[in-house]
Amino acid sequence: MGELKDLIKVIPDCTRMSTKQDDLLHHGKDKSSYHPVLTPDIVVFPITTEEVKGVVVFASEKGIPVTPFGLGTSVEGQVIPILGGISMDLSLMNKILEIRPNDFFVKVQPGVTRNQLNQALKPYNLFFPVDPALDATLGGMVATNASGTTAVRYGAMKDQILGLEVVLASGEVIRTGGAFLKSSAGYNLTGLFTGSEGTLGVITEIILKVYALPEFTATLTAGFESLEAASRAVAGMMQNGLAIGCVEIVDERTINAINQYKKMDLPEIPQLFIELVGKEYTVMNDLDVVKKELELQGCVHIEYASDKEQRERLWMARHEAAMAIMAINPGKRLMATDVCVPLSVLPSAIQRTREIMNEYGVAGAIMGHVGDGNFHAVFGVDPMNKDDLRKLQSINGAIVDYALSHEGTCSGEHGIGIGKIPFMHKQHEDLIAIFKSIKKMFDPNNIMNPGKII
Amino acid sequence: MGELKDLIKVIPDCTRMSTKQDDLLHHGKDKSSYHPVLTPDIVVFPITTEEVKGVVVFASEKGIPVTPFGLGTSVEGQVIPILGGISMDLSLMNKILEIRPNDFFVKVQPGVTRNQLNQALKPYNLFFPVDPALDATLGGMVATNASGTTAVRYGAMKDQILGLEVVLASGEVIRTGGAFLKSSAGYNLTGLFTGSEGTLGVITEIILKVYALPEFTATLTAGFESLEAASRAVAGMMQNGLAIGCVEIVDERTINAINQYKKMDLPEIPQLFIELVGKEYTVMNDLDVVKKELELQGCVHIEYASDKEQRERLWMARHEAAMAIMAINPGKRLMATDVCVPLSVLPSAIQRTREIMNEYGVAGAIMGHVGDGNFHAVFGVDPMNKDDLRKLQSINGAIVDYALSHEGTCSGEHGIGIGKIPFMHKQHEDLIAIFKSIKKMFDPNNIMNPGKII
Ligand SMILES: Cc1cc2nc3c(=O)[nH]c(=O)nc-3n(C[C@H](O)[C@H](O)[C@H](O)COP(=O)(O)OP(=O)(O)OC[C@H]3O[C@@H](n4cnc5c(N)ncnc54)[C@H](O)[C@@H]3O)c2cc1C
Ligand SMILES: Cc1cc2nc3c(=O)[nH]c(=O)nc-3n(C[C@H](O)[C@H](O)[C@H](O)COP(=O)(O)OP(=O)(O)OC[C@H]3O[C@@H](n4cnc5c(N)ncnc54)[C@H](O)[C@@H]3O)c2cc1C
Repeated sequence: MGELKDLIKVIPDCTRMSTKQDDLLHHGKDKSSYHPVLTPDIVVFPITTEEVKGVVVFASEKGIPVTPFGLGTSVEGQVIPILGGISMDLSLMNKILEIRPNDFFVKVQPGVTRNQLNQALKPYNLFFPVDPALDATLGGMVATNASGTTAVRYGAMKDQILGLEVVLASGEVIRTGGAFLKSSAGYNLTGLFTGSEGTLGVITEIILKVYALPEFTATLTAGFESLEAASRAVAGMMQNGLAIGCVEIVDERTINAINQYKKMDLPEIPQLFIELVGKEYTVMNDLDVVKKELELQGCVHIEYASDKEQRERLWMARHEAAMAIMAINPGKRLMATDVCVPLSVLPSAIQRTREIMNEYGVAGAIMGHVGDGNFHAVFGVDPMNKDDLRKLQSINGAIVDYALSHEGTCSGEHGIGIGKIPFMHKQHEDLIAIFKSIKKMFDPNNIMNPGKII
Repeated sequence: MGELKDLIKVIPDCTRMSTKQDDLLHHGKDKSSYHPVLTPDIVVFPITTEEVKGVVVFASEKGIPVTPFGLGTSVEGQVIPILGGISMDLSLMNKILEIRPNDFFVKVQPGVTRNQLNQALKPYNLFFPVDPALDATLGGMVATNASGTTAVRYGAMKDQILGLEVVLASGEVIRTGGAFLKSSAGYNLTGLFTGSEGTLGVITEIILKVYALPEFTATLTAGFESLEAASRAVAGMMQNGLAIGCVEIVDERTINAINQYKKMDLPEIPQLFIELVGKEYTVMNDLDVVKKELELQGCVHIEYASDKEQRERLWMARHEAAMAIMAINPGKRLMATDVCVPLSVLPSAIQRTREIMNEYGVAGAIMGHVGDGNFHAVFGVDPMNKDDLRKLQSINGAIVDYALSHEGTCSGEHGIGIGKIPFMHKQHEDLIAIFKSIKKMFDPNNIMNPGKII
């Protein structure tokens, strides 16, 4: 601890260094149920790349772990400082450095949140699409390769990042990619840092693609008699090159939770939440095609949100689905599976997920970004209840096993952290040695977020 | 040489091993003007991953270089075996292993060409969009991170690849990614191999996204008084979230070459070739918007290709533009610059390119995928004429310098090979040590396409 005081030499402002119990506790957990709290020894709040570099060099010299921290919303234990040390909170590096409307890119510091960015983009009629339902820092979203409701149209984080500035464990500051829309100039390091969860370096600047706000949006919900029927309808809809913006699935348990949490009265049957986006004439025409397709697929209830207020209400409902589940599980923490499978596997994977939960006698809610084949079973769990935890781990394992044996991945978007390490080992057995070599290459003394991913 | 005969143990078919002069010559060059011919000692044509592995293990043990070869259409000297050794021609590994129309992916061997794939996809009403104007193997396209006319809508190769099978220099066979549309499960090796130009391993299987064929396509050409005016019009068009499929620029020299080569009578003024794709109602509506925008931007001549035949004729003209330049430069070889800049820089970068060519008194043609800010100055060059070569290198260097000092990249799509190495060093000085470490990690004995990229 004593030596940590010397950090004042690199962060020359004692209000941006903290060993207060509250701060340590806050930086000792994310939103998951893993290792409830393992506090760092100190939290630092750098505001420049130079300061980040100073902290990393300091830590490197002394062999102290550094765990980058965005908003702490990750769900696989990514920010838990399992070996203590320094939690580096990047939320004060929240400057939007450049908005280039005609070039369709922005330069931001890593602590800028997606909501903050979208607020700033509005006057330009632009937006940043990646949407993990809640607010999060763009640095955290790069580091987990986040995606969410809009990936079906715009792709995941990895598809948005043009360039990065990264402080390596050595203290070296590098710049990958750049402000150009494409490049074939050497190995793709931008892609390598994306999804690296703070284990290869600290991201201090991000160049991101931005997009014209769709002129027109149509939102509808489509109810089905079974969740499997709803998931079967997805593939049908994805066929036609329609102006699909989002296709989300929510089961009756989720709807029930939303109704309680948000005082709504949505029909408590499995539903698809669908958005069409584009020019008004395109959307209105495609809307008819989608409605017909949904009826063909046995949809029993369609609700079209014709005005903005109704649309936002419906969409907010979907956005807060996970929060709603937490609200009806007071005092519990979140546990979510995150498999992603080919669309043709989706109905059977969802069915199998239901069966597994039934076999274990555990009621989880199912929701997800099914346009990409990605869905979650979501549970509230008391992290002190080892039996419950073990049971949910088994359920998670069984769902992942089904996905892996049907061409799926154990993580569509949440990342690996500590929670998914065993599953990633199963999935990419042949790559683990390479992952380790890459880690060793960038971080020979294992100070960058040790114990995560590998 | 003697020991190369032992390759018969791993390629048990003497018709698939060659030391014939013709074969050696063919595999000693690409389409560029670099190092005219440096023949390999032997060419092998594996047909299975096992055989690829056998060859790589053989080469590894004996320290013999292995240079993968697709169709040899690259333009930066990528396939030239600068240290001799084995040229590994993958064109016989040309099986389409799986087409999954409902999952929007295909699995192919690396020797499958994009035309072959598109032929096979047609009955499913699907297509693979990446289009480097001419035919090429998908393995070569992955290895160079190719793009082309459609990147403005669908992205580059890196945006299409879901998974890879790769034979490493050690002989180990690994699988990155998978058949899922997204994943956050460990470091992104798929991205790392994409664009690695055969220097990190041999790609033996590829899982690629495919897309619904657009229902409707509209093609138009728009003539301008100057090339700068044409390039300025691009940014205007990209603003509106229109159904843009391609935006290509061709200057009057290129049109002149096309008219000669294809016996056409296109107006010999700078032009944009534009495609709109999507549902008919979308395209027809957007067409009006685009036309108005083009007029606003000072377009002096618009030609709309209303029928299929006319459309294909126009588009074929653009596709064969580089070939046309070569045809009017008989006996010469291709030299093309390949910078990519932000859209707002495009007009000045194109203007500066013209000025540079004028300063050197060399007439090159300008064409490119300007919707992404990527364009080429194309020259015919006699590789035996050292003065000409030097002059063109200086021109290339000056154009790259302009791009690098205006947020651009030295290679938008052609890759590094041997030709762009010095430029890449300028651009990514801070990354070269990392590139070298990555190369060393995957290929400690430097047998995989040595001398390329680094
Ligand atoms: C209710 C709920 C719903 C969610 N839904 C989604 C969803 O739909 N899609 C989705 O993808 N995720 C989802 N998540 C997970 C989470 O929101 C994302 O992973 C998000 O990207 C985390 O951002 P953050 O700013 O909170 O990062 P943190 O949680 O603070 O950090 C995440 C990881 O990134 C690293 N990191 C943070 N900043 C940096 C930096 N500057 N440099 C290097 N490493 C850094 C950290 O060390 C850590 O490993 C959900 C979470 C919750 C609680
Ligand atoms: C007239 C003309 C126009 C062009 N236009 C474009 C364009 O618009 N966009 C564009 O991107 N490119 C363009 N190119 C360049 C070229 O077509 C592309 O680079 C293409 O991707 C090369 O494919 P190929 O099969 O010919 O590969 P090759 O030239 O045979 O090989 C290219 C590189 O890939 C490696 N490689 C090949 N197969 C494998 C494998 N299975 N595993 C590992 N490494 C492998 C080789 O070692 C080499 O380094 C053009 C070229 C010409 C001549």
